[in-house]
Amino acid sequence: MMELKLSEIAKKISAQLVGKDLTVTGLSTIDNPKPGTLSFITSKKLKKRLADCCCAAVIVPPGIESDRHSLLVKDDPYLGFGLAMRIFHNTHRYPQPRIEPTAVISDTARMGHDIYIGHNVIVKDNVQIGNNCVIHSGVFIGENSVIGDRCYIYPNSVIMHEVTIGDRVAIYSGAIIGSDGFGYTKTGGGFIKIPQVGVVVIEDDVEIGAGTTIDRATIGETRIGTGSIIDNLVQIAHNCNIGPGCILCAQVGLAGTTILGKNVILAGQVGVAGHLTIGDGTIVEAQSGVPKDLPAGSVVFGYPARDAKLSRRIEAIISHLPDYIQRLRNLERKVNDLEE
Amino acid sequence: MMELKLSEIAKKISAQLVGKDLTVTGLSTIDNPKPGTLSFITSKKLKKRLADCCCAAVIVPPGIESDRHSLLVKDDPYLGFGLAMRIFHNTHRYPQPRIEPTAVISDTARMGHDIYIGHNVIVKDNVQIGNNCVIHSGVFIGENSVIGDRCYIYPNSVIMHEVTIGDRVAIYSGAIIGSDGFGYTKTGGGFIKIPQVGVVVIEDDVEIGAGTTIDRATIGETRIGTGSIIDNLVQIAHNCNIGPGCILCAQVGLAGTTILGKNVILAGQVGVAGHLTIGDGTIVEAQSGVPKDLPAGSVVFGYPARDAKLSRRIEAIISHLPDYIQRLRNLERKVNDLEE
Amino acid sequence: MMELKLSEIAKKISAQLVGKDLTVTGLSTIDNPKPGTLSFITSKKLKKRLADCCCAAVIVPPGIESDRHSLLVKDDPYLGFGLAMRIFHNTHRYPQPRIEPTAVISDTARMGHDIYIGHNVIVKDNVQIGNNCVIHSGVFIGENSVIGDRCYIYPNSVIMHEVTIGDRVAIYSGAIIGSDGFGYTKTGGGFIKIPQVGVVVIEDDVEIGAGTTIDRATIGETRIGTGSIIDNLVQIAHNCNIGPGCILCAQVGLAGTTILGKNVILAGQVGVAGHLTIGDGTIVEAQSGVPKDLPAGSVVFGYPARDAKLSRRIEAIISHLPDYIQRLRNLERKVNDLEE
Repeated sequence: MMELKLSEIAKKISAQLVGKDLTVTGLSTIDNPKPGTLSFITSKKLKKRLADCCCAAVIVPPGIESDRHSLLVKDDPYLGFGLAMRIFHNTHRYPQPRIEPTAVISDTARMGHDIYIGHNVIVKDNVQIGNNCVIHSGVFIGENSVIGDRCYIYPNSVIMHEVTIGDRVAIYSGAIIGSDGFGYTKTGGGFIKIPQVGVVVIEDDVEIGAGTTIDRATIGETRIGTGSIIDNLVQIAHNCNIGPGCILCAQVGLAGTTILGKNVILAGQVGVAGHLTIGDGTIVEAQSGVPKDLPAGSVVFGYPARDAKLSRRIEAIISHLPDYIQRLRNLERKVNDLEE
Repeated sequence: MMELKLSEIAKKISAQLVGKDLTVTGLSTIDNPKPGTLSFITSKKLKKRLADCCCAAVIVPPGIESDRHSLLVKDDPYLGFGLAMRIFHNTHRYPQPRIEPTAVISDTARMGHDIYIGHNVIVKDNVQIGNNCVIHSGVFIGENSVIGDRCYIYPNSVIMHEVTIGDRVAIYSGAIIGSDGFGYTKTGGGFIKIPQVGVVVIEDDVEIGAGTTIDRATIGETRIGTGSIIDNLVQIAHNCNIGPGCILCAQVGLAGTTILGKNVILAGQVGVAGHLTIGDGTIVEAQSGVPKDLPAGSVVFGYPARDAKLSRRIEAIISHLPDYIQRLRNLERKVNDLEE
Repeated sequence: MMELKLSEIAKKISAQLVGKDLTVTGLSTIDNPKPGTLSFITSKKLKKRLADCCCAAVIVPPGIESDRHSLLVKDDPYLGFGLAMRIFHNTHRYPQPRIEPTAVISDTARMGHDIYIGHNVIVKDNVQIGNNCVIHSGVFIGENSVIGDRCYIYPNSVIMHEVTIGDRVAIYSGAIIGSDGFGYTKTGGGFIKIPQVGVVVIEDDVEIGAGTTIDRATIGETRIGTGSIIDNLVQIAHNCNIGPGCILCAQVGLAGTTILGKNVILAGQVGVAGHLTIGDGTIVEAQSGVPKDLPAGSVVFGYPARDAKLSRRIEAIISHLPDYIQRLRNLERKVNDLEE
């Protein structure tokens, strides 16, 4: 068990220590606090939760006092929590560098140093894998794909051919990168498949969730920008271009050839139609359906997605539609009476 | 082919035999009946379907007669069907106990008796597997995970480290249990990953569908309660706590730290926001989006989810909105006339 | 690099060459044109895009001229593009026929000629695999399953037992065919699983996307009709019957025992309830929820899905609901005044 003084943690997470310089053994949540640990609250409104918190110390926003705890004061306590977690824990578990004997690696593949390749991993011709990568059991890497340094690929995911992956990318279990785009054209005799000969490019520091599918382009590329984070079971169709710093929550679906700017947030189960351009910093709330382009800075929700403020006014009205219709009927009666 | 007398089946499924004690060779559906088999109807309304049913016998609710068939009368005919299916068929296919030679099992793993471990299964350090388990080909089980007795794990699913699974749990193909939660925090330089060091606990008698993802907790646990059944492609985020006896239909998504009580039913494609509490026995109808807590016994649908009765009234009004707006316009004209 | 004369391409794609019979080296898109290649525009409205297109030639609909390009004129330019792609590229990559030494193939399996079986593929008892098939690494094929000729199965997908697959079927990575249907019945002691003893039948020329799940029938069959194309992360429940020529876009979900006619189109994230019949040629727009049967030729959208024209009128009204409610209030005031 790691033990650290609060003063050390304060220094590393850029927080101000108020109270005794205790030693803590890790972190716990305010919902399930543990003695001897460091907890956190993200807002002053949660101040009262401190009363029955048995932790030694708490990361808090400015303006909070506690008799029971040492405090680490930080403007963004959740960032403080994240940084503290990274002091106590690795972001991934690193096995000893080694190539397991059951891995099947092409003679033409080029492998960096200090890598771990798990059991039954398949590495096809001309693949390049950078330094310090971990590739877990059952992963398939198709020919000519390139993986940068310090990537971490979880069990049973699939990276098809000609996929280019930057540095420090994490791909979680069961994700499928570079499967064929959904491209068909109709003939008299039914659909025929259009060969999908484009590629996928994943830039640095991207995270791709479990079971997520990112299709290769028909021609050209499907691209995920630097530092974008993608949750589980997300579908990204051929030729999409996701800008840097985007957040795609679970079960989001993007149809083909859609462009997201930078720092776009798509909440859970959002769908975005094809051939759209979504401007920088746009926020689309959960389950919304986006049928058309959105300018930078949009905040939308609904099906179809509308400006969020308008959508909330509309939702409030809809909740009272039975009353409004009753009022309409009353008016009709009164007007009838007046006419008579 | 198994042959059974109706009197035996009646006894085992607690039904009352009316008519001849025939021998049947299995079950068939009323939509596709087969001679010599036992079929079922779930309601008296389907009585007329008996007229052209070539089956030997039918499981029926009370109050139905048939010249053509022997009847097994049971208050809950669908339960009778399920029980009868379990007489004729196993719920899973059990291969001969054996550890396939291509399985890679850590020396520190502890294995129960009478287990089947398929080809290319990976069992990491300190894993425990109970008695009478079947683990099919290509499954990955991460270090320190514990699996109870009589569990059945289908091909190519992934169980990450420190996942605890009770007895008689079934995990279908491609399910991913214990992948990292979607936890990041923003710094000036972009998102940084918060280490996800919690666990997943799956209680007894849980079923987890194909391609479903259940993320590990950030800290603490993600928990699935006893006897809950989860369909395919469901997303359960970090720190969710699903009570016992819940039903989560296909493509449901739960955001992080949400709590379901017991016997909650979420129909297909439902989304539930994070940090919510959904009371016991709540029913959320298909595709609904749940943005806030729901008390026990709620029945809701819609996006956003509202009380189901209110939602149906609203939907009926919305279907006639063009008419209502026309009535509003007519009124405006009349009032205008009256004012003049 | 393949080089072809436009006259040859024109002949193969049934287009009319207007201009010089140049040689082209492949295809590119109008968004990212490349010198020396053949591009395409799908509509006359995109005519102005030709002005700055550096391609040698363009596939166009009738009625377009260009000084800069040779033209291949075709009524359906997208079909022309698809056909031209198939001249330059294979629809899939065919490895040399070979059975990799790590594949585990039952002695009772029957294998066609000229097949490729990848590493760690598991082929169980009595499986039949037709001629010219490619089965990539990590695929599992359960007992008694039958696969036709020229099928192509991508890495890590799973085909359970007693699944019948026709000719020229493509199954992309991580797809799960024939997992158990979600069939349970409630007893006093909780849910019990109903054995799922039906099968899955995939007819000829079907395409099944990455991560898609198609469950086996409880009794009888789940069937996908000839030439239907299914995108990624789609859920098809037990006993569904999809007619020929259907399109199911990404993340669509069908509940159990639902029937689609022929040529039905379900756009992305659509949900269809169970036990429904959807008529031939029906189009369901993105994210819609279908709660009831639809006659042939329906075009619907919305949640719940309504006739698309009605739904668009309703959506337009809903966008202006705050105004309408204001007008209702104004009327109430005026009528009040009139009454006084």
